[in-house]
Amino acid sequence: MTINNRIDELIIDYSKGSRRALSRLISIVENDSSLRPAVTEKVHPFLQGAYRIGLTGPPGGGKSTLVSVLAKLFRQAGKKVGVAAVDPTSPFTGGALLGDRVRMNAISLDPGIYIRSLATRGALGGLAAAIEDVVDLMDGFGCQVILIETVGVGQAELDIVSSADTTIVVLVPESGDSIQAMKAGMMEIGDIFVLNKSDRQGADHALLEIRSALKYRKPDIWTPPILKTAASLSEGIEDLHEVIEKHLCHLKENGLLIKRQYQRRKMKIRRIVQAKLEQDFWDEERKARLDRIAGEDIPVFSASEKLISE
Amino acid sequence: MTINNRIDELIIDYSKGSRRALSRLISIVENDSSLRPAVTEKVHPFLQGAYRIGLTGPPGGGKSTLVSVLAKLFRQAGKKVGVAAVDPTSPFTGGALLGDRVRMNAISLDPGIYIRSLATRGALGGLAAAIEDVVDLMDGFGCQVILIETVGVGQAELDIVSSADTTIVVLVPESGDSIQAMKAGMMEIGDIFVLNKSDRQGADHALLEIRSALKYRKPDIWTPPILKTAASLSEGIEDLHEVIEKHLCHLKENGLLIKRQYQRRKMKIRRIVQAKLEQDFWDEERKARLDRIAGEDIPVFSASEKLISE
Repeated sequence: MTINNRIDELIIDYSKGSRRALSRLISIVENDSSLRPAVTEKVHPFLQGAYRIGLTGPPGGGKSTLVSVLAKLFRQAGKKVGVAAVDPTSPFTGGALLGDRVRMNAISLDPGIYIRSLATRGALGGLAAAIEDVVDLMDGFGCQVILIETVGVGQAELDIVSSADTTIVVLVPESGDSIQAMKAGMMEIGDIFVLNKSDRQGADHALLEIRSALKYRKPDIWTPPILKTAASLSEGIEDLHEVIEKHLCHLKENGLLIKRQYQRRKMKIRRIVQAKLEQDFWDEERKARLDRIAGEDIPVFSASEKLISE
Repeated sequence: MTINNRIDELIIDYSKGSRRALSRLISIVENDSSLRPAVTEKVHPFLQGAYRIGLTGPPGGGKSTLVSVLAKLFRQAGKKVGVAAVDPTSPFTGGALLGDRVRMNAISLDPGIYIRSLATRGALGGLAAAIEDVVDLMDGFGCQVILIETVGVGQAELDIVSSADTTIVVLVPESGDSIQAMKAGMMEIGDIFVLNKSDRQGADHALLEIRSALKYRKPDIWTPPILKTAASLSEGIEDLHEVIEKHLCHLKENGLLIKRQYQRRKMKIRRIVQAKLEQDFWDEERKARLDRIAGEDIPVFSASEKLISE
């Protein structure tokens, strides 16, 4: 059986709700970027525009616990939920402590929740492209809410969550000192800020820090709320759920949900075009010329010009 | 005065050793990617092939303290030192605690050390390109050793350090649980592993974890040593300095220093070509077509094909 027939078969099972088929398809796009077009074309008709929530923040902020608690709440509201984790310190991905893993396992047994973790390295065609494919596959599978967890330190990871419909930045009292430093990154992308583990010392101080850091954002019709939670104790989670619903309403009422979907599509097309341009450019001859020219004592921009113009 | 004349003037001051000129040139390449060619072409004749050391690891591992202690040692050995920090939690970049900042200030007063921090976001043309330019500017300025600090969580950040001549991965006893998760990323790129804050509990256990994680690496003539340090107490630093010198010898003896420089040049040229291809492709007409096509209900790969072929 050719791989294309195999994909066709998997798509049929996938459309009937087979989790195994979903997992296989995700593995295919993760491991062989040449098969991405075939898979994503076939998944396209199933896309339903799932609501995407990105969660980011420094490691150790309890993002995964928040994710699992939120997943449960959305389940209770009758939604099918997808979880995509790109956090190397996440219990979904294999890090963190045993207690967390047990909690994760509890939600992973629910047939209405599909969890997938992605390695931060080695994803062919880039991390962002891989994540988009995975999330689309979950969307086409019928997940109505998709939670995307990344650790908010890397540039690629921040870009991923900030392309979600709602971006939640998760901080802890101990982040206090680094909040200043994050201003340029995480503080700009959050639609909702969560101070997790707020039963710990320093919570009030951290809250003030977040508030003052947010002053530098340019004013918008949506003012990002700051919530206190203690996810392991399930405190403040109902409030968070409510605020998320509020943000979703805000997005819908102002036509922003459609706008963000459109922006994501644009981004995806740009990325594919970029990969294709590169692939077409670097034929064997040009690769050989690059090997030569890199060894010569000329500035890199001149070298690039030569490669392109000759 | 045109900006090109301004750059020429700055290059003259820079070649005479003006730190102010160096800072200005770095700001120029950071803030306006269109001026990168002009600056890097003029800096090219000054390049001397500085020895690049990358330090990475999870936040809170004491990387910056290690960097400052190492910088001092290299100074004592008579070298001019550059430091480029891309770690949002680093005291160089503005994060971390007051004590660390005081330590940093101490080294930043030494005229033989030049420190520069870079934001992880908003760098035009990508973080990696920006860092390369900054490091090259330090190299051309006469820095013989350049220490590059990134937080080892993001993909882009790992790529940066792994392109250094010597890559040091800094872990702490508390990293123990996440070492497994890091296997695919940090454990592969390190030439030297440092268990910092090794006066803390759990050091021996963490050491075992690192050792067992390193078993999965494919064998090489260089076996990455694992060192215990306590940078704040300056313990183990002399050993680390020695091991770094040993790795440098290894690189030189096996022709790897030249090979890594060559690989970096290749990488840089590829990146410039890629940016140029994109820039040439996305003219006003194609941008308008993208705006339209992103709104249509067709799969993204088909949309990309249409854009490229039409």
